[in-house]
Amino acid sequence: MTDTTTLPESQDGIHDEEDRLLPRYVREVLDAVEGGQIDKARELVEPLHPADVADLIELAPEDDRPDLITALGGEVDADVYAEMNEHVRELVIEEMDPAIAASLTADMETDDAVAMLEDLEEEDQQAILEEMEPDDRVAVEEALAYPEETAGRIMQRELIAVPEHWNVGKVIDYMRSDQELADDFWEVFVVGPQHHPVGTTKLSTLLRTKRDVPIRDIMQEEQTLIPVEMDQEEVALRFQKYGLISAAVIDPSGRLVGMITVDDIVHIIEEEASEDALLLSGAGDGDINEPVREAYRDRVRWLIANLGTALLATFVIAQFESTIARLAILAALMPIVAALGGNAGTQALAVTVRAIATNQLTGSNRARAIRRELKVAILNGVTVAVILGIGVAIFLDPIIGAVIAAAILFNIVVAGLAGVLVPITLERFGADPAVASSVFVTTVTDTMGFLAFLGLASAVLL
Amino acid sequence: MTDTTTLPESQDGIHDEEDRLLPRYVREVLDAVEGGQIDKARELVEPLHPADVADLIELAPEDDRPDLITALGGEVDADVYAEMNEHVRELVIEEMDPAIAASLTADMETDDAVAMLEDLEEEDQQAILEEMEPDDRVAVEEALAYPEETAGRIMQRELIAVPEHWNVGKVIDYMRSDQELADDFWEVFVVGPQHHPVGTTKLSTLLRTKRDVPIRDIMQEEQTLIPVEMDQEEVALRFQKYGLISAAVIDPSGRLVGMITVDDIVHIIEEEASEDALLLSGAGDGDINEPVREAYRDRVRWLIANLGTALLATFVIAQFESTIARLAILAALMPIVAALGGNAGTQALAVTVRAIATNQLTGSNRARAIRRELKVAILNGVTVAVILGIGVAIFLDPIIGAVIAAAILFNIVVAGLAGVLVPITLERFGADPAVASSVFVTTVTDTMGFLAFLGLASAVLL
Repeated sequence: MTDTTTLPESQDGIHDEEDRLLPRYVREVLDAVEGGQIDKARELVEPLHPADVADLIELAPEDDRPDLITALGGEVDADVYAEMNEHVRELVIEEMDPAIAASLTADMETDDAVAMLEDLEEEDQQAILEEMEPDDRVAVEEALAYPEETAGRIMQRELIAVPEHWNVGKVIDYMRSDQELADDFWEVFVVGPQHHPVGTTKLSTLLRTKRDVPIRDIMQEEQTLIPVEMDQEEVALRFQKYGLISAAVIDPSGRLVGMITVDDIVHIIEEEASEDALLLSGAGDGDINEPVREAYRDRVRWLIANLGTALLATFVIAQFESTIARLAILAALMPIVAALGGNAGTQALAVTVRAIATNQLTGSNRARAIRRELKVAILNGVTVAVILGIGVAIFLDPIIGAVIAAAILFNIVVAGLAGVLVPITLERFGADPAVASSVFVTTVTDTMGFLAFLGLASAVLL
Repeated sequence: MTDTTTLPESQDGIHDEEDRLLPRYVREVLDAVEGGQIDKARELVEPLHPADVADLIELAPEDDRPDLITALGGEVDADVYAEMNEHVRELVIEEMDPAIAASLTADMETDDAVAMLEDLEEEDQQAILEEMEPDDRVAVEEALAYPEETAGRIMQRELIAVPEHWNVGKVIDYMRSDQELADDFWEVFVVGPQHHPVGTTKLSTLLRTKRDVPIRDIMQEEQTLIPVEMDQEEVALRFQKYGLISAAVIDPSGRLVGMITVDDIVHIIEEEASEDALLLSGAGDGDINEPVREAYRDRVRWLIANLGTALLATFVIAQFESTIARLAILAALMPIVAALGGNAGTQALAVTVRAIATNQLTGSNRARAIRRELKVAILNGVTVAVILGIGVAIFLDPIIGAVIAAAILFNIVVAGLAGVLVPITLERFGADPAVASSVFVTTVTDTMGFLAFLGLASAVLL
């Protein structure tokens, strides 16, 4: 059922040029299902890759999904569920007979089965686990015993481990003999007597070596081992840094317990980088398939926090009520100082958060990064202050021009420093630098901006 | 020289628990170089992986880098340059004798050589190309002829292609005979008479098949082909969607011209997702290694654009000068309406931009995504309006409380709609939804927020 051959122009009538399913095609399938033309629906879906079937289900309106899945029958197999968006999958699985859900997991690798079960309600999870084959169940329960988002959750137990005294021929014969083995492995792990990894051999090396050579002679002794409790974000950074395709996972006693492959990591890298963009904007999980009530809960929390910090700015402005009453044009100008400070702060913040997340900013270059942001802030501040100051001086009043120029220069420099210092400080105290930074930074730039502008104006103009 | 064995606790005296080089270790190497203890410096660096040597050079202050590289000599090889941050590499290569730079490229795969040369000044690039071996030069020049950020730039030409009439034994013998071959390949491409790809075989399948089986019988005919002009972001999405490890690249006539492997894609996925976070905040390229003048140029442009849009808000407020003169407390409250609208808009924006970037939002679910944001916005708006309205009514004035509640509800709904509609519209017109969205959205929320609040206040209170 997997036909992903891509014509140069992707003119297959199913995908657009970016591999997205054409709305016309999705409509056609849904219409066939609604009209009871089950055979036509299956025929339309038959050429799709599992990832595309998963997309199709995600793109269907929530109410149409049960009928669609029923109509497609065997086309919606374990691979499809493994590829499905977690929010959509959760909705679908919760509606499903636990015995059917359990039979799906039988065709999955451990990591996919765990991903399918881990977000379900305790009760639904238990019902499915009870229907599973004892072997699979033990593997999944062991994985679920590791904390969420750790290597133990994303590893698969299916791997090839051979003792170091074997030769290449014996390794190849062993691989040929076990037809149960998955095809998706890229290296063979060599283990010592306690099942401790002692080396690794790429399949390409194995293929190019004569049968009588001991595996010990061609294995690479240096390998990157992943502790089973390691956070998935760190696992992803390690794969990225060392260009890994797969890696062995070890338990605290050093025994080989699983393998992580790069195709699982690719999703994590994308998620973690997206997460920073979403956290910086306070959008929580930020998936368009997330139920409305969850999106509301995530976002409103942040808006209420922002309400609190906005009140601080209000308090600052209120101190200058009499100044504003006498010179109301100040009220029209003051948002400029706050908006540009906020923007400059967010720029510095985004750069710093990404540098921390990608391990580019460490104790070795911290002072340099701060000096760098200060330089950029001074250049930005002077440029904006000159443009705005001259504009206001010409069209309004020279003294107000001077006041707003000074205030905005001050605020942009404060913003740059806050943008780099806040995430660095949060990180040093073990907090996620993305999650709370932008509240701090915009609070600083709003209050400092209003204070500088209205304070200076009061002193100079009245 | 690659020893990346990781002790469970990473207690190697070089790395911290997140694989970053310890500041103490970096200092030790730099001190050794400065003190002329070249042997000590080399000894310290010898156990490092090339990716760590690259990190070391990035973490060293700019002025110390030439001495460090000279001292380390052969430890800084082609692999190190391939791993280095592009801004740092550019600075280093520009200072280097073109003949030395050319000799580095001889040990690189095409894609790494291209990455090293593509960002250099035309003149520096030419100088190095002239010193290169004719074969390598042709390959790099051909790659450079493709547009930036396309498959042609990131593919490597080194791959294994075999005719379909060969059997497994012959393929294996061929691979054994060519010792020049790189080890980093995971599948063998099968080609027809015109060098058109007709199938592919994973190394794991090859290893597990008997020698006399024709490759035609075990090859997978369905494969994902990458057109050579495809944008790297789309290539990355395709790898992600179909879980690819490597893929064949074809020219417009369908001939196999190269191969892309997932380890190169991993960097692109990270970059593209980071890029959205940085573009949304207007931080341009946003790399902490980017020279100050480039960071200034990228960011100030955005601040000046923001200055223009902030003036629009100023213009709106100025229309209500007499209202504010009579009731200056309005000036203290109005930033709340703008700030929360801006925040709600940014939330919707971040979610929508990521959904578009990951191909989750298409013509099939566009209307649904808009309805979803509207629902979340109404829930958020009502919650914030009730809290703020009651607070202002109690501590200040009931009528002002009602006015600000109505204004903020209106503005949060406008913000939600703007946050989803602006990127969708930009995308439909072929623009990058991340790059200009936040200017539009905050302009809308600022002006609408001030207009609603001050307009209502003028009508009700005066």
